[in-house]
Amino acid sequence: MNIDSIFQAAQTAFLDYKNLSGKEKGHFLDTLAEILESNRESIVPLAVRESNLPEGRINGELGRTTGQIRLFANLVKEGSWVEATIDPALPDRSPLPRADIRRFLTPLGPVVVFGASNFPLAFSTAGGDTISALAAGCPVIYKAHPAHPETSRKVAECIHQALAATNLPTGLFTHVEGGIAEGQALVQHALAKAVAFTGSHAGGMALFKLANQREEPIPVYAEMGSVNPIFCFPNKLAKEIESLAKVFVGSLTLGVGQFCTNPGLIFVPASQAKTFETHLIEELKGIPAAPMLHPGIAKSFHDSIQNLETRGELRWIKVAAPKHLLNGSAALAEIQVSDWLKDNQFQQEVFGSFALMVVYQEMEDLSEVARQLQGQLTITVWAEADELEAQVPLLNLLEEKCGRLLFKGAPTGVEVGNAMQHGGPFPATTAPNSTSVGANAIKRFTRPIAFQDMPQDLLPNALKDGNPLGIWRTVNGRITME
Amino acid sequence: MNIDSIFQAAQTAFLDYKNLSGKEKGHFLDTLAEILESNRESIVPLAVRESNLPEGRINGELGRTTGQIRLFANLVKEGSWVEATIDPALPDRSPLPRADIRRFLTPLGPVVVFGASNFPLAFSTAGGDTISALAAGCPVIYKAHPAHPETSRKVAECIHQALAATNLPTGLFTHVEGGIAEGQALVQHALAKAVAFTGSHAGGMALFKLANQREEPIPVYAEMGSVNPIFCFPNKLAKEIESLAKVFVGSLTLGVGQFCTNPGLIFVPASQAKTFETHLIEELKGIPAAPMLHPGIAKSFHDSIQNLETRGELRWIKVAAPKHLLNGSAALAEIQVSDWLKDNQFQQEVFGSFALMVVYQEMEDLSEVARQLQGQLTITVWAEADELEAQVPLLNLLEEKCGRLLFKGAPTGVEVGNAMQHGGPFPATTAPNSTSVGANAIKRFTRPIAFQDMPQDLLPNALKDGNPLGIWRTVNGRITME
Repeated sequence: MNIDSIFQAAQTAFLDYKNLSGKEKGHFLDTLAEILESNRESIVPLAVRESNLPEGRINGELGRTTGQIRLFANLVKEGSWVEATIDPALPDRSPLPRADIRRFLTPLGPVVVFGASNFPLAFSTAGGDTISALAAGCPVIYKAHPAHPETSRKVAECIHQALAATNLPTGLFTHVEGGIAEGQALVQHALAKAVAFTGSHAGGMALFKLANQREEPIPVYAEMGSVNPIFCFPNKLAKEIESLAKVFVGSLTLGVGQFCTNPGLIFVPASQAKTFETHLIEELKGIPAAPMLHPGIAKSFHDSIQNLETRGELRWIKVAAPKHLLNGSAALAEIQVSDWLKDNQFQQEVFGSFALMVVYQEMEDLSEVARQLQGQLTITVWAEADELEAQVPLLNLLEEKCGRLLFKGAPTGVEVGNAMQHGGPFPATTAPNSTSVGANAIKRFTRPIAFQDMPQDLLPNALKDGNPLGIWRTVNGRITME
Repeated sequence: MNIDSIFQAAQTAFLDYKNLSGKEKGHFLDTLAEILESNRESIVPLAVRESNLPEGRINGELGRTTGQIRLFANLVKEGSWVEATIDPALPDRSPLPRADIRRFLTPLGPVVVFGASNFPLAFSTAGGDTISALAAGCPVIYKAHPAHPETSRKVAECIHQALAATNLPTGLFTHVEGGIAEGQALVQHALAKAVAFTGSHAGGMALFKLANQREEPIPVYAEMGSVNPIFCFPNKLAKEIESLAKVFVGSLTLGVGQFCTNPGLIFVPASQAKTFETHLIEELKGIPAAPMLHPGIAKSFHDSIQNLETRGELRWIKVAAPKHLLNGSAALAEIQVSDWLKDNQFQQEVFGSFALMVVYQEMEDLSEVARQLQGQLTITVWAEADELEAQVPLLNLLEEKCGRLLFKGAPTGVEVGNAMQHGGPFPATTAPNSTSVGANAIKRFTRPIAFQDMPQDLLPNALKDGNPLGIWRTVNGRITME
């Protein structure tokens, strides 16, 4: 099947699918979740083999995947997400009457989704991007990640089973395999209306540029990771130094560090750097080297570490295990804040279990850090209540640099819910006004449309008088279910 | 004042202003509306002189401007627009507890706004873009339109009076005069976080490209106009041919055709083309040539018409009055749908009172038109109820090509309200997921941020337990005022 036929089929499917009721879309998604669960025994071993991730993790990830699917199923079945807004006609308004104007969110059209290597299920074939696009009403042309082709094919089969079981056209989902050229061709097709991507900065930026050079530029929702700094304030660290070292090392080494929210930067006061270091070394002792997702990622990890080893500003707390075709192991280096501030290279993500411990002298150093910090998915602040109150201006600066600001625990483990924001200022993403996790991810694949003086029987149900769907709407500026 | 100092001042102001309460921001905006009204007698004559628009129109436009300001004042005083969403902690959830996550919309930072020539007040210095950015919490660096410098300076003074009267820093609004180079330098400054523009396709695309080439790409909300097609269905036209001709000519010639929503394309069934033409000629008789906004626009209008006069596919119903330094007059040409479909040049906007009457043979022609049509701000369908019901698939296609779909009246006269969508698929805008008119315009200048396990007293009031602002929020997925 050539790319043009894929998009033509998707577009044809779209013109019906966009008008499907939320209940019907939800039924399709629920069916898909059931089919994925009933195929657990064949999917999990494939994903384990292709990702080198442990079975427990992949089993959990399948649960996360079906959980996400059900979140979106419930969202579209409930229906209020379309932001229905009604300004009824005011025929007697002076000096001019007001027309009847009704607005809601409508899906964009066929979208291109790129799978991520580090979540072979939850951010891949039936992952968050695919599902939020399908929930919005958009067909998906899915570019499979070459690191897990069999898992991807199997999940794609499940999607097609769910489409068949709910009498929906196959054009709503197409599984495309190939390399960079195939991916580029998808982004360049005139019928593509948006792109979702999770992966490297280089990959995301290449797609972003390509999409902006099209005759019709289209949005690219690229989540390109970040170093997710953790700021340790002195009193908090003094009080809980051992448990915080444990939390940090746990987050740093989880999944061999292969998470977008992996903490690659930790700011520690000079007075406690040595003690913290001792605890880190202790914690790291129990963590063996482990296989990474694929040899390319392992090579990249080791090359980055090797490159950093040439930097005289760093003192190594723990060097990585020797270069290995597949394994990665934790590595940790220390740098003084004055050196860190001199070179933005020290803000670059190393994908894997590597972190820089930045030693600062006084709180004022952190304001300069906050100003110079690039956009992040997350920033974590470990502080006592009184320390936070004294540092409100610093928090105010840090807010400007992230999509999620945490005060407990670690940035890994991204909750899938209504309030989650998984995104952030550039270079963390190319679209800071969007999230790729949680209910709001659906809005990436929509645009508002207004109908003026449209006859009642032609209006979408969400906008009809009498609120037949029973959803929350804004009528005359007032939020109401009437 | 150099550009860097302007942005530094804006950024400093921003870090306080973003945390100002909705009530305080609303008070500033209300104050501004009052000051503008109390300066009506000095503002209106300036704008009349600089825009060549009649006093009645400018007086009305000042009312529209203050109306917009009060819309946003009320929106931020009420406060629910921030989309506060709260997923409280579930410490006992199994297998993993849920953290407390709270999300709302936070302003982007300093934004660059470009004034439009055709609305010296409502889309200029204190126009919709400036006001929605200020309402969102963003300082504005305003690039004045060179066509109305004195009006712009006067309105900028009013803004500074309102800032002073409400004890807000001058850095929240800076009035910058200059040409293309100055505008480009503003867009390129590292502290600029978004750009709003209303104007030509060439101007909008130049800014869009520049913003995407920055080290940190930023969103460009460029509203670049469109030809706003009107589709006349046979029965409706037969029934109301005279009054529809009147509505069309009224909309076409309003403000010498200098509106983004000016209808530059009208599709008429062959059976009635001749009669419709007769009525159009009759209606046009009463409309004299009138001065356009400035000589550059008049030249551009006459050049475009001259260029079209070389096209053999056109039959001229009414030629424009002879080339004039400032005046523009209505011009109207007829083209067969088969010729129209052959060349997308016939979809290009001519800024001024020019329209193409496209003669179609049968309804099926319109499906092909709908498929080939570029993105539009508006599409209007004039049809009887039974004609609409028979053409649902065509309407379905037309929805894909516009931001607003009308079934009565004309596209000019954009209502400022909650449900308005003034935007549309490219090339009408560079950001189809946004509107530049109406309450939702505020969201262009925000991004979501989530706070995880943030202590109550540090949380923004919109996200605190007990809902101290009394706004609508989504708590545990449920919309509530609790």
